[in-house]
Amino acid sequence: MTNKNHNWASQRDEKNLRMANATSIINNKFVRTENAKELLETLIQPNDRVVLEGDNQKQASFLSETLASVDCARIHDLHMIMSSVSRPEHLDIFENGIATKLDFSFAGPQSNRISKMISSGILKIGDIHTYLELYARLFVDLTPNVVLVAADKADKQGNLYTGYNTEETPVIIESAAFKNGIVIVQVSEIVDKLPRVDIPSDWVDIIIQSDKPYQLEPLFTRDPQNITELQILMGMMAIRGIYEKHHVQSVNHGIGFNTAAIELLLPTYGNQLGLKGKIVPYWEVNPTPTLIPAIENGWIKSIHSFGGEVGMEQYISARPDVFFVGKDGTMRSNRAYGQMAGQYALDMFVGSTLQIDKYGNSSTVTNGRLSGFGGAPNMGSNPTGRRHSSTAWQSLKPTDNPLAKGQKLVVQIVETYNSAKKPVFVEHLDAEKVQKEANLENVPIMIYSEDTTHIVTEEGIAYLYKTNSMTERQEAIEAIAGVTPLGLRSNAKKLNQLRNKGIVALPEDLKVNRLAAKRSLLAAKNMEDLVKWSKGLYNPPAKFRSWS
Amino acid sequence: MTNKNHNWASQRDEKNLRMANATSIINNKFVRTENAKELLETLIQPNDRVVLEGDNQKQASFLSETLASVDCARIHDLHMIMSSVSRPEHLDIFENGIATKLDFSFAGPQSNRISKMISSGILKIGDIHTYLELYARLFVDLTPNVVLVAADKADKQGNLYTGYNTEETPVIIESAAFKNGIVIVQVSEIVDKLPRVDIPSDWVDIIIQSDKPYQLEPLFTRDPQNITELQILMGMMAIRGIYEKHHVQSVNHGIGFNTAAIELLLPTYGNQLGLKGKIVPYWEVNPTPTLIPAIENGWIKSIHSFGGEVGMEQYISARPDVFFVGKDGTMRSNRAYGQMAGQYALDMFVGSTLQIDKYGNSSTVTNGRLSGFGGAPNMGSNPTGRRHSSTAWQSLKPTDNPLAKGQKLVVQIVETYNSAKKPVFVEHLDAEKVQKEANLENVPIMIYSEDTTHIVTEEGIAYLYKTNSMTERQEAIEAIAGVTPLGLRSNAKKLNQLRNKGIVALPEDLKVNRLAAKRSLLAAKNMEDLVKWSKGLYNPPAKFRSWS
Repeated sequence: MTNKNHNWASQRDEKNLRMANATSIINNKFVRTENAKELLETLIQPNDRVVLEGDNQKQASFLSETLASVDCARIHDLHMIMSSVSRPEHLDIFENGIATKLDFSFAGPQSNRISKMISSGILKIGDIHTYLELYARLFVDLTPNVVLVAADKADKQGNLYTGYNTEETPVIIESAAFKNGIVIVQVSEIVDKLPRVDIPSDWVDIIIQSDKPYQLEPLFTRDPQNITELQILMGMMAIRGIYEKHHVQSVNHGIGFNTAAIELLLPTYGNQLGLKGKIVPYWEVNPTPTLIPAIENGWIKSIHSFGGEVGMEQYISARPDVFFVGKDGTMRSNRAYGQMAGQYALDMFVGSTLQIDKYGNSSTVTNGRLSGFGGAPNMGSNPTGRRHSSTAWQSLKPTDNPLAKGQKLVVQIVETYNSAKKPVFVEHLDAEKVQKEANLENVPIMIYSEDTTHIVTEEGIAYLYKTNSMTERQEAIEAIAGVTPLGLRSNAKKLNQLRNKGIVALPEDLKVNRLAAKRSLLAAKNMEDLVKWSKGLYNPPAKFRSWS
Repeated sequence: MTNKNHNWASQRDEKNLRMANATSIINNKFVRTENAKELLETLIQPNDRVVLEGDNQKQASFLSETLASVDCARIHDLHMIMSSVSRPEHLDIFENGIATKLDFSFAGPQSNRISKMISSGILKIGDIHTYLELYARLFVDLTPNVVLVAADKADKQGNLYTGYNTEETPVIIESAAFKNGIVIVQVSEIVDKLPRVDIPSDWVDIIIQSDKPYQLEPLFTRDPQNITELQILMGMMAIRGIYEKHHVQSVNHGIGFNTAAIELLLPTYGNQLGLKGKIVPYWEVNPTPTLIPAIENGWIKSIHSFGGEVGMEQYISARPDVFFVGKDGTMRSNRAYGQMAGQYALDMFVGSTLQIDKYGNSSTVTNGRLSGFGGAPNMGSNPTGRRHSSTAWQSLKPTDNPLAKGQKLVVQIVETYNSAKKPVFVEHLDAEKVQKEANLENVPIMIYSEDTTHIVTEEGIAYLYKTNSMTERQEAIEAIAGVTPLGLRSNAKKLNQLRNKGIVALPEDLKVNRLAAKRSLLAAKNMEDLVKWSKGLYNPPAKFRSWS
């Protein structure tokens, strides 16, 4: 047995000691803005595990700037845990000698710099995760010492209102508040009465008003102006050859113009096909503005969201039958529950990618660019623990095995050449090289071939789930890979064999009229149209406003 | 576009109307115990989707009794959504004509009756889920009209304290509170000041004091008295041949004497092997009393839990370095986050089952007994969306594919004959028959062969992940299936081939001394020993107390 005097509350004692050292600047949980640096230097200790909130949209920017400025003689060797490495100072923290190790999910805007810092040894990667598995580890082997998060408002008692962008704040706070971690929150405003309480005061240790509101990116906004006719053609094929064919009821769309095109085709092309009420009433997706016409046209019963979207606030508040909205009239998002739903409760994931290899593995990690994973691998995977059935899921069930079950539809929509005129279909993913350069345990594949059930290009659809060998799978991919080197391996005979087996479908097989793939088919052709559809409730950020 | 006068807040209006109809019995959220039936008859409407809280441990028993007593002329055709069908009145609700459709996860105690009610057509199954996917659907296509949940205490403002058994209350409430659902909470007590706020008042519509505290089952308590020497032998093999071999750091144990044996062997056999500090510091598991010796002996860094465990309250409060405990000194559990961690953040799941077929598929659904799934398929599956690496996970990576990744260890520990002297290893699962009887879409398999990486019996360990064909997999299973009909297909020659390939290991291959597999090797031999290890802090429920 253990020593009788073993202290089983050592973490709590440590927390209390740190808090006691900061009493001179803490007034009943509240700390003045100008004392932020002193606060962090007092409450954080070398080698701490520190969670810094920042998914791809919402950033605890005041706290990250403050952390990047602390004295590295006092605070060093931190192990940072961050959903997203998005802001310059996220990496300054490492360059400034404050942190050395990083566990993260996504590094879009900083993906070049992070690659260089890994090679130069300034930054050591713990691992790269999907959002959901990173949250999961906060309760197992990455329990934090300190968490730095952001909320809209606090009341005088210390309760928090996170507003539309609740996102990952609750899951991060819960992991610390109940395991002796210190919860430090930046708020944009301190008020007498909150619209509603999102996080109870009991879970919060420190509240500090930020110098300016936290950073928030309109990441899911796509201007319909930029949707091309090829994307419209692919969208039409997807609607006929996938959404309609499999009776898809619930879906997540990735970020991109390909899926934006589909959203804008539902109230036009979808209506022509008589599909309203028959497909995709249920969505797990951020409140992307290109969904407004489909919502207004009565296509959508429910949208649960990971986060909010800048400019959509008033529109969301006015559509509580569709969005998740509190009694106070403002949205509640939740990134952890959203990813959970995205994995387990949906018929289909539809995304895009930068490269697809000959087997059907895909990745957005390309040379010199370690972009991480975000949520796509989670939603773009077939959860083998799923036990409930749906028509779409069952439609992919193999017929040769009485013990078989269905499968999630995981769809990649890509043009065969990307916007930089490089082939999307490649012999080997750049990710294979990146694995070696960054010394990663595995090739950073975003979505594996085994999980990918359909690929849509401007050529046609490959129904990969129907192939019964890796050779046939490769042939199906080649058949829709256009004039990329992979595509050139296909020929008319092979193509027709695959079409006859139903493994590949061309637009004519789907009765999709190529000539109808015009921009005039989009329910909204530009941002102004979206505002009109919203009856003036959608308020696009300035950078998306090209009209007066 | 839609009608200008379309009401986009119809769900909210409907909720407000129902609440207005009940104003005479609602006093600032609070309703008197004796008005419970009238309340439900006013707030619930025919065809509603109603979530009734009740996982395998914690039951909103006052509200379920009340619901079973309502007038079926007023309330009928409800669609019930319940994690667990555990109490008689859960099925009375259907027999009494109040509900017709059921989506659920687990039906342990009611598994016989539920089978009969399906055959007789009284009850129509929506589907059977794992816990996590049922929670996921609450945000997508099963958003509830009304939720009936349980908490320990409410304060006068309507904030809730859920105590040790937070479990699934937050995820259920969130799904309703932000989608115009009505949140009705039974509390055991109304107080001036809560120990802490678990759920903010803003998320709650109605609080009603129950006539007695909610039902709570000590489901995870196993009396060491009942652990057999065969189970000890299997535990020793598992520790050497799996935990040690794969350097397993994080684990979930299912309910059962097999895993209880392992827990009680860590401080004895594990110490003899010098494994303390080297294996399983991180756990996602309910606070099972048989973990007390391993905790006291310094094996365990962290335990996050789905729920509490009756009798463990004081012990947990005194061990905040290990358990998740709030500032108030009481535990916070969370079933949704626990299942999320169980799926994505663990190296290994270890469970037991009632039947395993020749391929390695297993199920606890047996003839006449539709037990459902609970959490096992979720934790006992290989999440293909996982991207982070660990030593154990990587140790299962196939060596013949440069694009391969690791795999979760999914271990079944079973004696070849179960306690009813029936063979566990069978040609066909009873579940195949149950599929037909209950008209289920798929065979209710608990854990599929493809996810099962190891099987341990009293004969030895089959390393299924090493097999490279279904034939070899079947041979490996036969080799450890003892004298069951399946086991008799094996012979000495095949066994030795498999041992030479490292696909099967016998105790001697693992250097496990069969003669040492004695009850004296258990760190605690009975409940009294567990209480002693806990320094008197563990307080077993009466039914587990055989001493004074």
